[in-house]
Amino acid sequence: MSTLQKMSHFSFTDLLSESRKALNDLTHLAMDRRIRLAVTGLNQSGKTAFITSLIHQLLHGLGGANLPFFSVVAENRFLGAKTMLQPNMEIPAFRYDQFIATLTGNKPDFPRATDGLSEIRLAIRFQPSGMIAKQISPAATLYLDIVDYPGEWLLDLPLLDLSFKAWSDQLFAFCQEGPRERLSAAWLSALGELDGNGAADEETMRLVSQHFTRFLQDCRDQKTGLSYLQPGRFLIPGELKDAPLLTFCPMAHPGGVVGEGSFYEVMEKRFESYKDRVVRKFYQDHFSQFDRQIVLVDLQKALNHGPNSFNDMQNALQGILNSFSYGHSNLFTRLFQPKIDKLLFVATKADHVAANQHPNLERLLNRMVVRPANEAIFQGVEVKTLALSSVVCTQTVVRDHHGRRLSFVKGRPKGRDKEVMLFPGEIPESLPSSSDWEESRFNFLDFQPPTIVGGRSGQIPHLRMDQAIEFLLGDKVL
Amino acid sequence: MSTLQKMSHFSFTDLLSESRKALNDLTHLAMDRRIRLAVTGLNQSGKTAFITSLIHQLLHGLGGANLPFFSVVAENRFLGAKTMLQPNMEIPAFRYDQFIATLTGNKPDFPRATDGLSEIRLAIRFQPSGMIAKQISPAATLYLDIVDYPGEWLLDLPLLDLSFKAWSDQLFAFCQEGPRERLSAAWLSALGELDGNGAADEETMRLVSQHFTRFLQDCRDQKTGLSYLQPGRFLIPGELKDAPLLTFCPMAHPGGVVGEGSFYEVMEKRFESYKDRVVRKFYQDHFSQFDRQIVLVDLQKALNHGPNSFNDMQNALQGILNSFSYGHSNLFTRLFQPKIDKLLFVATKADHVAANQHPNLERLLNRMVVRPANEAIFQGVEVKTLALSSVVCTQTVVRDHHGRRLSFVKGRPKGRDKEVMLFPGEIPESLPSSSDWEESRFNFLDFQPPTIVGGRSGQIPHLRMDQAIEFLLGDKVL
Repeated sequence: MSTLQKMSHFSFTDLLSESRKALNDLTHLAMDRRIRLAVTGLNQSGKTAFITSLIHQLLHGLGGANLPFFSVVAENRFLGAKTMLQPNMEIPAFRYDQFIATLTGNKPDFPRATDGLSEIRLAIRFQPSGMIAKQISPAATLYLDIVDYPGEWLLDLPLLDLSFKAWSDQLFAFCQEGPRERLSAAWLSALGELDGNGAADEETMRLVSQHFTRFLQDCRDQKTGLSYLQPGRFLIPGELKDAPLLTFCPMAHPGGVVGEGSFYEVMEKRFESYKDRVVRKFYQDHFSQFDRQIVLVDLQKALNHGPNSFNDMQNALQGILNSFSYGHSNLFTRLFQPKIDKLLFVATKADHVAANQHPNLERLLNRMVVRPANEAIFQGVEVKTLALSSVVCTQTVVRDHHGRRLSFVKGRPKGRDKEVMLFPGEIPESLPSSSDWEESRFNFLDFQPPTIVGGRSGQIPHLRMDQAIEFLLGDKVL
Repeated sequence: MSTLQKMSHFSFTDLLSESRKALNDLTHLAMDRRIRLAVTGLNQSGKTAFITSLIHQLLHGLGGANLPFFSVVAENRFLGAKTMLQPNMEIPAFRYDQFIATLTGNKPDFPRATDGLSEIRLAIRFQPSGMIAKQISPAATLYLDIVDYPGEWLLDLPLLDLSFKAWSDQLFAFCQEGPRERLSAAWLSALGELDGNGAADEETMRLVSQHFTRFLQDCRDQKTGLSYLQPGRFLIPGELKDAPLLTFCPMAHPGGVVGEGSFYEVMEKRFESYKDRVVRKFYQDHFSQFDRQIVLVDLQKALNHGPNSFNDMQNALQGILNSFSYGHSNLFTRLFQPKIDKLLFVATKADHVAANQHPNLERLLNRMVVRPANEAIFQGVEVKTLALSSVVCTQTVVRDHHGRRLSFVKGRPKGRDKEVMLFPGEIPESLPSSSDWEESRFNFLDFQPPTIVGGRSGQIPHLRMDQAIEFLLGDKVL
């Protein structure tokens, strides 16, 4: 063999090996997937506990015992998961390390995150299921970014469709009934003293805006429990506290031409700035990047609060759904189309009612979010409802009660020292009619989390978290 | 006169009147001026009290009694001032309304603003002094935006000139002496266990970064009182708390080529992101818009703390000055040139020492900021030092003391019920030499503000606030 032949022979082998490596790398790259999963909830729905449990189930999913409905686990293709370096420089970390310590400590408690945006990245290693994929690449990675943000921000999106006048009219109408009528009195009285055509000054702007903010806070308050509250940053101001962006309120048009610098003109200008610099900015910087969205609700709390709170939650859920509907012809909603393809509504704390009530919980949530006639408009976005429990705090115990077999719930209610056994009552399977509310029928309790055996690396008992995970990630780990 | 003549006659008059009106409007426009005045201070220098007093003196300056050195007042050309609508949508309001209530209430106290940026706009009406200007326009308006921001942000600017390596080296050198040696021990020990070439994980990054943050907090602490602390957002995280931008620390280069994803590489990347997304962003969004800058320092506190704190303050002041010097050839510092043309260093709380010590206070500050040899490099930026008191809390009383006439200070020290008369000692007129520090020579006290007669609209006694105002605004109200 001549030197030349040798060289070319070696070169050919090298080339082949290099090519194989390159192909392998390329396949790896193709197999590695990314997904941004957004989690939000209406007022205190247990969002931090949900995300903490979700992460924990994935990190400790290798045993398989805990996630039977997550296909990649059931099919023995799950190779493990771990947390990665934070993906975005500006976005605070979701402090799983802190929250899991709170949840699994000696005195276990539900963790509570600070208000605002946070995120965490997990890497999930798995075996691809397809024959070809399996041969080329024995393992692939799904990079999962979980983004936690306040439900108030999601409820701001509908504002983009509203003019200042339309929004003001809507709010004034809301304030004519229910708890809003009483709670808005002080604000409306302060507003009534203003002449929309008068020259605006900052001190007066601030005064009526503070009244309006207090009205929103009172609506959200534990006692009232309303959900459909806008603008969201008035409730979570962060670094915008005292900024003009948060210093306005709805106002009736004073008639005629409103002059520059008048109260009405300044209110309207600030509302438009809020839409532009807060809502649209959230949409552009974050929302448009999400692949899938979870919305958590605490239905039992809404039922406890009675018809106003319950109907308001339904309004909020419908408002959210409208943001995802393609039937709408406006420019904004069409922007949603490309990214989010799955939307999961979750009724949390399912374990706070007896097991035989779980189907009703799910059915009720379903009734709230999907009006059958409108289902068509959600084509393209898969919408699912699920009742689950991030951390099971109770046991269902069936007992005879004066000749009837009833399902009781056993657990330690929040703020109490001892376990109790109680009959929390039934969840209506359809939207309660006005007569259903007559007696203060619903009185569901919150429970303390159990002590987790094994602490931080123990198993956290859950209900249907695996079904949620399968819906959200199943098609990405095939 | 023909119709045509009539018409043209009328038209000509109309035209003349229109032209005069336009000229008038134009002149008004030309006479109306805007100025953005930035106020910052090193660690607890009384910035909120200073700005509150500044606003108050201007709003109530019409009497003239209180601002003899403000030329527009002295020359009877001052027509009054008032607060205006907030100028920028995103920037929180400087809450003068709250602060003045705290300062002039029944139990007067010094107001304290929340950390972060805030601003307020005043309109100052005055008669122009020039003969021609006076004839064309009897009154002009100066729009004054006062911007309040943390000194930590100003101290971040020098970072733009430093590489991660240079910054790390500088910090490690700082940690070899003074209180930093002791306070950095825990952080340096945790850092020492890391291999710069090892694969970075978020939990470890967070751990060393938390140690480093605690070190910075301890340095700033009341007991230690250091000023030259970077990066500033580690001390005032706001909405960036737990974000990767604030999750790094200085690190020694491990040698060789550092791989992607190694601790050193991730630290360096985050440092560069901090420079880019925090420091440069502050520069672009805010600093580059400032016309004039005030830096407040509490010299007495630095003297109380001893040589380390005092020298550190001097380093901080020099660092700030370097950001303004044109001699520097780097790209960044040249960016300063167009805007800021006056820089005022203020020693606050002058009333906490006897009146005969005020000249020394000013001279000492002057020595700290202006090294005579370097004065030339500040051409183009007028630099001034001033000792003043935003709110006078004491009286100077001259008494015989064992045969010597000494100047005592009478007032109610912070946290005490009764007035005392004390001899706070002398302010050195030049930089203290090491022997000057021998005995714990300096022990200046903080005092409570006096009760203001007339409350919110009463006169707040001050020292040389008018000289500060004249320096900052005098040339804009001519």
